[in-house]
Amino acid sequence: MPAFSHHVFVCGNVRDPGHRRGSCDPSGDGDLRDAFKKALKRAGLSRTSRANHAGCLDQCEHGPVVVIYPQGIWYGGVTEQDVPRIVSETLVGGKILDDLLIPDDCLNNPDCPHRA
Amino acid sequence: MPAFSHHVFVCGNVRDPGHRRGSCDPSGDGDLRDAFKKALKRAGLSRTSRANHAGCLDQCEHGPVVVIYPQGIWYGGVTEQDVPRIVSETLVGGKILDDLLIPDDCLNNPDCPHRA
Repeated sequence: MPAFSHHVFVCGNVRDPGHRRGSCDPSGDGDLRDAFKKALKRAGLSRTSRANHAGCLDQCEHGPVVVIYPQGIWYGGVTEQDVPRIVSETLVGGKILDDLLIPDDCLNNPDCPHRA
Repeated sequence: MPAFSHHVFVCGNVRDPGHRRGSCDPSGDGDLRDAFKKALKRAGLSRTSRANHAGCLDQCEHGPVVVIYPQGIWYGGVTEQDVPRIVSETLVGGKILDDLLIPDDCLNNPDCPHRA
């Protein structure tokens, strides 16, 4: 397995409390990343997939943000409770979870209405 | 532009001096990531590409490591001096730089001889 089938980048950005763009990981403890690591291990995917800490992914208004490459699937508002179904449905099943998907109109758009 | 055409993850992992797996960014100052950010800006690619801090990408023996998604191009031993040609040749020109490419036999391989 030369490359990861799914490389999950979990934003761990921490800003000062009250910052207008918020923080994906206000406590800075990396719990969401750790939840992915554990879920990948439980699913037997640790050799082929990786959960990775990332700095700011610049979709802050939709945080906590996760991007899965090489598929380029961007999820927002992700909680630890979402992790098992992201692993089972998206990573294993190949299904996009529409309730978590960051809309195309918002992604990488400085004029996204959520930034107002 | 809904997604990044090139999302460049730059390992910023810092380990204790003397650790057998080394550190991609021993000083922890993020200079390599910053060099990518500046080069993308100079090339007018800041809206469509992003240079991102990443935690350990687990190819430590080939560090400093950079992975470019969604293309899945893994470069190792990357220095600030390499950044302009990565941007001009790989991001703009679509060319793989063989001297920086982490070999398939090493990538994500716990038995990679460089780990011995």
